[in-house]
Amino acid sequence: MTQRIPVVENILNANDHLAQENHTRLESAGVFSINLMASPGAGKTSLIEQTLPRLKDKLRIAAIDGDIATSLDSDRAAAAGALSSIQINTGGNCHLDAVMLRGALDQLQLNQYDLLLVENVGNLVCPAEFKLGTHKSVLIASIPEGDDKPYKYPGMYRGVDALIINKIDLLPYVSFRMDFFQRGVESLNPGVITFPLSCRTGEGMDAWINWLLQNSTK
Amino acid sequence: MTQRIPVVENILNANDHLAQENHTRLESAGVFSINLMASPGAGKTSLIEQTLPRLKDKLRIAAIDGDIATSLDSDRAAAAGALSSIQINTGGNCHLDAVMLRGALDQLQLNQYDLLLVENVGNLVCPAEFKLGTHKSVLIASIPEGDDKPYKYPGMYRGVDALIINKIDLLPYVSFRMDFFQRGVESLNPGVITFPLSCRTGEGMDAWINWLLQNSTK
Repeated sequence: MTQRIPVVENILNANDHLAQENHTRLESAGVFSINLMASPGAGKTSLIEQTLPRLKDKLRIAAIDGDIATSLDSDRAAAAGALSSIQINTGGNCHLDAVMLRGALDQLQLNQYDLLLVENVGNLVCPAEFKLGTHKSVLIASIPEGDDKPYKYPGMYRGVDALIINKIDLLPYVSFRMDFFQRGVESLNPGVITFPLSCRTGEGMDAWINWLLQNSTK
Repeated sequence: MTQRIPVVENILNANDHLAQENHTRLESAGVFSINLMASPGAGKTSLIEQTLPRLKDKLRIAAIDGDIATSLDSDRAAAAGALSSIQINTGGNCHLDAVMLRGALDQLQLNQYDLLLVENVGNLVCPAEFKLGTHKSVLIASIPEGDDKPYKYPGMYRGVDALIINKIDLLPYVSFRMDFFQRGVESLNPGVITFPLSCRTGEGMDAWINWLLQNSTK
């Protein structure tokens, strides 16, 4: 990594402090919270769309969607059954930060929810540096992105608590060496829990849903 | 867009100034130069791999690859026939800038090349803000990323001179409304030249190759 100039260091320190405050707030309210990160188009919104109908009778769920522009994603989350769906437009910024999440949390009665899904801006670099204060960071990789992504975006792969490998239904149509991909993941984040699945076909969704359910009802 | 704080404004101004210097240098040496931008995994390196063998007997080509980490991409460009292939490791940075490009140009005898392909870091946000000084900016969209990307990453789609739509061989296996996608593109960047193609099957490559050839031999 580059040597950080002090102004960047200070911004990150201030962010970490606010992230800790967000975490305390979520923890006190009993809301299990997820920071979903991925490249553009890897399937963050699709995952939320597929997750909500499977859990909405068991958990009270809120979604917060971060985007450069539009409210397309929060509209989709609302349509899929989120009790509340809040859009953060970052105004050009390439990642969410703890201040933005705090602003969104202010709009929710947190004790009315069991699970909060936060969808970050599509980007494999910058979101890794800005903690939000959620309980778990989850990265969505995608088969058509290619098998070299852990090697090329190590910061993102290193820092997450769970890894989803989406679009496994496309495996027959692209070149993707699963062993090469998984060796890369293992070298950066040994033992990280992994969910291969397809938001399109539903294959593999059960394990992910069970993991969310177990964590949300602890 | 957010209001810029002065320090950011100054950084961008300084970058634009250096980009102009790079541009003058490339122009004087008679090198036609491309800044290739895309999400992670949309196919920047694959496009370079497919482009080089088709042009290497007609043009003298150099490649410069920007990455957070590894030299996987420049290795692939060299193997595909680039006369010179230079890796820029950005040390965590999420985009190339004009200073980084200048450092790479210093390593090349520019008058020995007709075409320079610069592969930016995989990111649909930050690279749009930092000009490099190349002649044309080219964005690679990818079918499995989904049809909503112009709406969600307008800054990137607005600023490019050409648009490649890669992985058209995957159209039968995913949901992608081409008309919705193209309406988004048209609203941001009316009349932008577009090349639908597949780096995997080679379909559509000819139009892209001809465009490069025409521009490089002007």
